[in-house]
Amino acid sequence: MKIDRTVVRSLALFDKMTDADLDRLLSHATSRRIPLGEAVFEQGQEATSFFLLLHGRLKVTQVTEDGQQIIVRIVHPGDLFGFAKALRRSDYPGTAIAAAESVALSWPTEIWPDFVEQNPRLAVTTMQTIGQRLDEAHTRIREMSTEEVERRVAHVVWRLCQQAGKREPNGIRIDFQISRQDIAEMTGTTLFTVSRILSAWEARGLVEGGRQKLLVRDPEGLSLLAEGGKE
Amino acid sequence: MKIDRTVVRSLALFDKMTDADLDRLLSHATSRRIPLGEAVFEQGQEATSFFLLLHGRLKVTQVTEDGQQIIVRIVHPGDLFGFAKALRRSDYPGTAIAAAESVALSWPTEIWPDFVEQNPRLAVTTMQTIGQRLDEAHTRIREMSTEEVERRVAHVVWRLCQQAGKREPNGIRIDFQISRQDIAEMTGTTLFTVSRILSAWEARGLVEGGRQKLLVRDPEGLSLLAEGGKE
Repeated sequence: MKIDRTVVRSLALFDKMTDADLDRLLSHATSRRIPLGEAVFEQGQEATSFFLLLHGRLKVTQVTEDGQQIIVRIVHPGDLFGFAKALRRSDYPGTAIAAAESVALSWPTEIWPDFVEQNPRLAVTTMQTIGQRLDEAHTRIREMSTEEVERRVAHVVWRLCQQAGKREPNGIRIDFQISRQDIAEMTGTTLFTVSRILSAWEARGLVEGGRQKLLVRDPEGLSLLAEGGKE
Repeated sequence: MKIDRTVVRSLALFDKMTDADLDRLLSHATSRRIPLGEAVFEQGQEATSFFLLLHGRLKVTQVTEDGQQIIVRIVHPGDLFGFAKALRRSDYPGTAIAAAESVALSWPTEIWPDFVEQNPRLAVTTMQTIGQRLDEAHTRIREMSTEEVERRVAHVVWRLCQQAGKREPNGIRIDFQISRQDIAEMTGTTLFTVSRILSAWEARGLVEGGRQKLLVRDPEGLSLLAEGGKE
């Protein structure tokens, strides 16, 4: 199947590529639909492809040796993911699960080095993407090291508002399925603690929950909480 | 000053570069000695250069808005650091301080995009470097989310043994100045907790301390502790 360049032309990743280069790149790509709850790849599986998310949201989880799960990141449209080769690995370090109906492009892993070497501008933007992700990881380490858990949860939810928020009449809706357990796995705390915090926030009119749903009713209040200020 | 290519020829970062390309690259570089305790750059300072550590060790710290410090990583010889440009930033996200007498090469930040575009193979290796660092950051997030503090401390010290350890007759010596406060800032815990853990380890003959010094007397015991096994 031919993938039309208009599908990806607007992505920051490709903004410096010529149409001809982009067409060549897309000629190697395969498009794939990932239904809600399905995995694109599983942790430990041989990395045969790398991917670009076009539409939807994915959660990337890792399970530790003793069976505890954490969410290492959320993949947003326009993000590259599963490029184990760039991490000098032959297997996927995590599992990527669709948290909403998603569509991704995939390329065979073998073409990764050529992909980068033949598209040096793409290399620069990809590096920026990985660099930003590193920056985010350091922010998260900093928060986990120094912040109280309530503020950490506020930070995570506030970032989700910015990256995956949809304005609605009565607040900002996180546009994919997110559970209290997910938030626990994103903040390094327990389901019990997240439930306690979200219930308190609900009572104060900050958020509105529901199964796998989250509406932030008072974005300013939440952002203040994330910044460590007083409401 | 001309920098001879033999100084860097053995680094993984350059292993696929031709001598001519490497010479061209080095013609833009400046060599700099960083005395123990001195900063190469400070958090928030405009990023005018990016660097390659040739010799020594650096600690990269970040201070949060409310004044708490954490160590985001240790820079080892052969590592690139301070490439804020790759993270789409104009300032350094952290402070890099020499934890041992160090020598680094620096390049002006403006040449970063050319540097990468003109050396696509270098782009691939740099990306792997950043990718590995991302992998490390995710490991750390996973540990902070799921592991007991003693095991986290064991993990950090064990990694330091592998990355910066020197075999001595009675154990493995961490080859740069590292304090209990540093370990606290690397594990997201308090000085008090690290002191308590290290004192217990000393009593059990696992490690031997001293001001800013650390000798691991029983590497197997430490590695077992890091893996979560019983001694």
